[in-house]
Amino acid sequence: MTKTAARNAVSAEQSAVEERLTRNVKGSFENCPDPRLKQVMQSLVTHLHAFVRDVRLTEEEWNKGIEFLTSAGHITDDRRQEFILLSDVLGVSMQTINVNNAAYGNATEATVFGPFFVEDAPEIPLGGDIACGAPGQPCWVEGTVTDTEGNPVPGARIEVWEADEDGFYDVQHTDGRVAGRAHLFADDAGRYSFWGLTPTPYPIPHDGPVGQMLEATGRSPMRASHLHFMVTAPGLRTLVTHIFVRGDGLLKTDTVFGVKDSLVKDFAQHPASAPAPDGRAPHRAWARVRFDIVLAPPGT
Amino acid sequence: MTKTAARNAVSAEQSAVEERLTRNVKGSFENCPDPRLKQVMQSLVTHLHAFVRDVRLTEEEWNKGIEFLTSAGHITDDRRQEFILLSDVLGVSMQTINVNNAAYGNATEATVFGPFFVEDAPEIPLGGDIACGAPGQPCWVEGTVTDTEGNPVPGARIEVWEADEDGFYDVQHTDGRVAGRAHLFADDAGRYSFWGLTPTPYPIPHDGPVGQMLEATGRSPMRASHLHFMVTAPGLRTLVTHIFVRGDGLLKTDTVFGVKDSLVKDFAQHPASAPAPDGRAPHRAWARVRFDIVLAPPGT
Repeated sequence: MTKTAARNAVSAEQSAVEERLTRNVKGSFENCPDPRLKQVMQSLVTHLHAFVRDVRLTEEEWNKGIEFLTSAGHITDDRRQEFILLSDVLGVSMQTINVNNAAYGNATEATVFGPFFVEDAPEIPLGGDIACGAPGQPCWVEGTVTDTEGNPVPGARIEVWEADEDGFYDVQHTDGRVAGRAHLFADDAGRYSFWGLTPTPYPIPHDGPVGQMLEATGRSPMRASHLHFMVTAPGLRTLVTHIFVRGDGLLKTDTVFGVKDSLVKDFAQHPASAPAPDGRAPHRAWARVRFDIVLAPPGT
Repeated sequence: MTKTAARNAVSAEQSAVEERLTRNVKGSFENCPDPRLKQVMQSLVTHLHAFVRDVRLTEEEWNKGIEFLTSAGHITDDRRQEFILLSDVLGVSMQTINVNNAAYGNATEATVFGPFFVEDAPEIPLGGDIACGAPGQPCWVEGTVTDTEGNPVPGARIEVWEADEDGFYDVQHTDGRVAGRAHLFADDAGRYSFWGLTPTPYPIPHDGPVGQMLEATGRSPMRASHLHFMVTAPGLRTLVTHIFVRGDGLLKTDTVFGVKDSLVKDFAQHPASAPAPDGRAPHRAWARVRFDIVLAPPGT
């Protein structure tokens, strides 16, 4: 039965009972002193009630929902954020990103923030290495930061973070390491470069309730390979995004719906014998990628 | 700006981006082996995305939502269930009750379960006392359990639970007491009676994130005075309900939207000198209420 059919099968008397309740609950927020909070809460009530009514949610299903949220709460701590994972796999995070980062000219597109960002990651110089012991193929990342007029953005702050080749971020290890993450600043011409790791695919943490939900619904927990960026500069819109690896087989089924065509980049492979752009000779094959970042004006 | 206006102010290009994402997320559940789970998840995605789009949820607001759920998870334990409170104060619990307990003839109406039910409460005989030391005015509760044809339901199991006159359920005290709750069985004629406490108003636990939300939105945490019932009998629909006290000033603003007119009862007051129906002489003024319970057929 379709959702509309399910709700239509309900008697007029029953519909009136359900509609009256929704009106009453919305009405309870009528005296909220903050008009925006009132709008958000009344909309949330409207949509949650519509969900319950559309699917004719059973009491057993409601109980499972409560148990799910309880488990998610109990697995969440300083290093694990199950509610962000939940928001991510339901596309709620990506939809929030979409709503707040409308396309603007040639500005670089945004994508999900994810649960693995850490404040105060170490600073590295231009051309420095973010790995700090994180295992993986070295990858030279370079580009420019400009505004949508093409003006360089000197001093733009670039935060980068990524999983190691075993598929884990530093915070998922239990030894307190800080690796595979750093921040650096664009030079006077808006240029930046650093050594990172060629991104590899990994599953989101799937030993908790979100993983159980993915398994029960026949979904994969795998994320497409990616490298996280957050770029900030005074007077410009903050950009939270990733770059993805062209050719990765997971681009179409990224479990958090983060992939955008414009963010898929060519990671050129080079043998160990090839000299790197900074004159170094990596001990193993390495990759190279260019990512030119364009920041939108604020409030766009 | 109304919600519709907010969404209408979005460009066609932007709307297309947002709609494509919702389609993709729904599509990710297309291979769910359980058709009901697929329906529930796809509907949940649809309504959550519509909420984000309607209010143009900001990233800061999304963050507050994640923090809210995290706090709710961390305050929840064996004795405190913040997610049920949340569902209750948003009317989601009551809407679920409505959906699953359609009006059926003269069957007694259902209301919210609440977070304070405990399995395996002690059995008392007919006419027994549920208080077990819980302070409050004695209240003689009596009635019958019948089906919608008027046939008595001998042996119907009646679970009752309530707060003491200080506004706390036993599980909210930290001394492990079991008080103000019990179960009993209707006699061969479907009759039941017990000594309870005259219900008094109390706030839901409001020292956590749900209480903060109520305060921020200008809502009261108070529940109308009530006594909980859960009545089960083979071959009949389980009834979860309360009775409320006529004249209680909180009937119109019950914070979990549990009040239904048919559940508001007369609690007659008697002086200490008046003999009680079972021949006892309570040491203080006491009340008396009649609650005839009518159970609907199963699957209605």
